[in-house]
Amino acid sequence: MKIVIAMDSFKGSLTAPQACDAVREGFFAVLPAAEYSCVPMADGGEGTVACMASCAGAAGKGYETVPDLFGREKRAEYAVMSDGTVVLETAMTAGIADLKPEERNVLTASTFGVGAQIKSAVARGAKKIVIGFGGSATNDGGLGALQALGVVFYDAKGIQIPSGAGGEAMERVARADPEKTVDLSGVSFVFACDVTNPYCGKDGAAYVYAPQKGADPDTVVRLDRGLAHFGAVLESAFGRPILKTPGSGAAGGLCGGLLALTGAQIRSGFEVLSEAAGLESAVKNADLVITGEGKTDAQTAFGKLPCRVGRLGKKYGVPVLCVSGSVDSSARALYDEGITALFDTVPCPLSLDDAMKNAAGSLRFTCENIARLRKF
Amino acid sequence: MKIVIAMDSFKGSLTAPQACDAVREGFFAVLPAAEYSCVPMADGGEGTVACMASCAGAAGKGYETVPDLFGREKRAEYAVMSDGTVVLETAMTAGIADLKPEERNVLTASTFGVGAQIKSAVARGAKKIVIGFGGSATNDGGLGALQALGVVFYDAKGIQIPSGAGGEAMERVARADPEKTVDLSGVSFVFACDVTNPYCGKDGAAYVYAPQKGADPDTVVRLDRGLAHFGAVLESAFGRPILKTPGSGAAGGLCGGLLALTGAQIRSGFEVLSEAAGLESAVKNADLVITGEGKTDAQTAFGKLPCRVGRLGKKYGVPVLCVSGSVDSSARALYDEGITALFDTVPCPLSLDDAMKNAAGSLRFTCENIARLRKF
Repeated sequence: MKIVIAMDSFKGSLTAPQACDAVREGFFAVLPAAEYSCVPMADGGEGTVACMASCAGAAGKGYETVPDLFGREKRAEYAVMSDGTVVLETAMTAGIADLKPEERNVLTASTFGVGAQIKSAVARGAKKIVIGFGGSATNDGGLGALQALGVVFYDAKGIQIPSGAGGEAMERVARADPEKTVDLSGVSFVFACDVTNPYCGKDGAAYVYAPQKGADPDTVVRLDRGLAHFGAVLESAFGRPILKTPGSGAAGGLCGGLLALTGAQIRSGFEVLSEAAGLESAVKNADLVITGEGKTDAQTAFGKLPCRVGRLGKKYGVPVLCVSGSVDSSARALYDEGITALFDTVPCPLSLDDAMKNAAGSLRFTCENIARLRKF
Repeated sequence: MKIVIAMDSFKGSLTAPQACDAVREGFFAVLPAAEYSCVPMADGGEGTVACMASCAGAAGKGYETVPDLFGREKRAEYAVMSDGTVVLETAMTAGIADLKPEERNVLTASTFGVGAQIKSAVARGAKKIVIGFGGSATNDGGLGALQALGVVFYDAKGIQIPSGAGGEAMERVARADPEKTVDLSGVSFVFACDVTNPYCGKDGAAYVYAPQKGADPDTVVRLDRGLAHFGAVLESAFGRPILKTPGSGAAGGLCGGLLALTGAQIRSGFEVLSEAAGLESAVKNADLVITGEGKTDAQTAFGKLPCRVGRLGKKYGVPVLCVSGSVDSSARALYDEGITALFDTVPCPLSLDDAMKNAAGSLRFTCENIARLRKF
């Protein structure tokens, strides 16, 4: 019996790999002879690399030291899949999750580290690089990442923009010199990105996301102006449209900046990551699939992870159980999406805090009991 | 596919029949072609008649008007099983649940109504009468019930003790005259009783249970003295030991009083009621059994209803699922008692109050999802 476990994280309590482990432990206690494949899933944001590195389709995980948002040394991990694909996430070196509120500075934070990671991957011979976008603390339009990849920027006076300058420097860029850029020929890029915001404007990176990153209204206006200006420079330097491209506003415009240089495909996080992890073929060959997330409700049926996994199960006629922290009965809509049955893991009336504290134990116990049903 | 549903009540939120209905609705939504038998269970206390009347082994339900604790008219129900057995519960006419705290009076409350119900059943031709003990507001040692059945009591001066006198009269009884007693020959009695308290003494009815019924310490002493005295009168009048008989203290000594007259068997509530309901043969012929209760934990494995149902399932090799309001992982002990798997019905972190408010809906939804697992 082949059991595939494709869990999302339980936000605030379990990472996706931890959730997969708990599910596996619960089933294994009852069905030790089954064959288990864990495919922890993420949406491209924080945790993407950890998920990809611990999934059944992974070859391994590496790390290197690169500059972080403010030029400090940062241990940055990446995953390598069995086909050689390298998986990065922008949250690794440009992420907001590790920052204290007082450390946030969207004007000076740079995506240099992301570019440094791409450069290293190419130097190691990567032919395909997948980048998960999300959870960034930056709004530099990809300026820093492009610098790390060898693009040199100058201001109107011909003075070079310093490396790692941050979003405030965008407005000063008059010219991009791609001459010393890392050779990316023969490298394909896929950007995992579930937002559709353009580079700039009212729906762009600055207006929509900079406030969450600590920008006041004046700063938002300044950053948006910077993006519009810098984006036009990039479009003319690299010959690719980015200003209005859906998704180019992801990670403070980093997506658009890298798009200008690489001509990457932008695809949904689920598709990119499930492809990198080999989820579809795993589901196809499974006898049973377990998915789940922190909270499953009617929203889930609009394309969230358990819904996507359910659709794969439906495609191949494989039952998919959704085991989530909590389940609202409105989630019945998922039955039509290939979810065979829904189970929550809350064992008794308790607070959200208490539920989260013992999330792994409860998930394990619920799965143990589901597995026990296979005994008759 | 035959599915037997043998639920206990979810205390404070669902009666056992309501719990059975919710389980059946959940399974029926998925498996409409299955054959369902509901066997709601009780422990002999309040709800016993309702359970027995609505179980698969029932022939019907009747009612009559008899005196309540204080001589007022009371509609009293009884169940009739398919073999003609009549099931009564002491809580029906002598119960404490309906009383306001200020109405409680353990000195004057009488079990007359219970005797009246027995008398009626015999008059209707009952050959076997099952009585569930528990939840009474009385401590009359069965004085009232025996009066209803025709036993006449006199004080030392030869004055007749008035009908429905209550526990305070026990100490005045000098003689019992059974001459006009209802003819009980050919009627077998089974008392469903899970307590083992004797009639009187420190472990007796008055000391252990009268305080819960509103007795102050002086009253407890008086009632205990009354029981000791009255019990001795009964022993000598009917020639059966009751004072030290385990269980004779049930329902304020009513059990002992009726025991003196009837020589009934005292048995555990589960055994008596499961026998009356035909639970064992239902389980034997089932493909799947569902049981459950409000809260399942390690205690449950010490013989509570789901444990007993599990043991029946184990005996006949039939899987038994326990679906309860809440489930502690310590309930794993039930796996050894024949419980195949444990499921709770709490859908998300919430308060006990909120869990209880939607208990039926949650139970139905959980069962629907369990049933859906049968689809693969």
